[in-house]
Amino acid sequence: MKYGIVIFPEKKVQDFVNSYRKRYDPHYALIPPHITLKEAFELEDSQLPHAIEDLDQVSREASPFDINLTKVSTFYPTNHVIYVAVEESEHVYTLHEKINSGMLHHESGYKFIPHITIGQKMFEDELHDVYGSLRMNRFDLQTRVDRFHLLYQLENGSWTIYQTFLLRGN
Amino acid sequence: MKYGIVIFPEKKVQDFVNSYRKRYDPHYALIPPHITLKEAFELEDSQLPHAIEDLDQVSREASPFDINLTKVSTFYPTNHVIYVAVEESEHVYTLHEKINSGMLHHESGYKFIPHITIGQKMFEDELHDVYGSLRMNRFDLQTRVDRFHLLYQLENGSWTIYQTFLLRGN
Repeated sequence: MKYGIVIFPEKKVQDFVNSYRKRYDPHYALIPPHITLKEAFELEDSQLPHAIEDLDQVSREASPFDINLTKVSTFYPTNHVIYVAVEESEHVYTLHEKINSGMLHHESGYKFIPHITIGQKMFEDELHDVYGSLRMNRFDLQTRVDRFHLLYQLENGSWTIYQTFLLRGN
Repeated sequence: MKYGIVIFPEKKVQDFVNSYRKRYDPHYALIPPHITLKEAFELEDSQLPHAIEDLDQVSREASPFDINLTKVSTFYPTNHVIYVAVEESEHVYTLHEKINSGMLHHESGYKFIPHITIGQKMFEDELHDVYGSLRMNRFDLQTRVDRFHLLYQLENGSWTIYQTFLLRGN
């Protein structure tokens, strides 16, 4: 089965991001706005208990933290993605690294950059237009991160929650 | 904020139900297939910790169980809903009752009937057609219930996970 690990920012941030995703993100209906901690990966049923144990360990050692969201950026030309950048993101990096060690380690060709996608799979012209109009915008959103979630993907491409992990370190 | 409490059946059941929901359920893209334990309700931020405590208590005392799904039924004429019926549903009733006591108590005009919606808000003719063709079908699906989830609703009507509660009674 295909799993993924994400942070959902607070509702106000999700609503803000959805106002753009509705137009620019074909995954709009498949999953709420999120920060990916670990991209989709395959896991056998028999491996699940061990994975849960590892994630629980990570969540036991990590403390809740705040992140700020103030501007839009893009992965162009690598990927035709526009996103809300995550500032003060060291804690997100650390979570990503801890989750991606042990049995859930996978090599990735990309550097991990914490972000919330606004638009993806965009035509080059559209991406330039949209990014051009959004790149000078400044906003001032903050969200508390005190949990992450393990999700799994259904046949239609949408994601269902499997389990929440509360950050409960000191 | 608007919250709801659900059970997500195993992936095979969700995929089966989605094959119908795609055509007959306008909420298809808003939430994965689910058994509602508690309909949408309002909760102030200040009430959330107490609610979480109550739900945690319920989940500590409840044991995992299995449910069988073998046929389709309808709430017509009360509601234009077609659903997969939940058999051996006493455990689901008990969960519903425990969750709906204490601070999360709300009166409801409807009797609680555990179900997984396949279609809703259907025109009467369509409902009769679809139900007529599905009512004689028998299938043999089983799903383990070892957790429930607290969700909240975004402005666009879709639902995001807040927290998982693992059933960990003996």
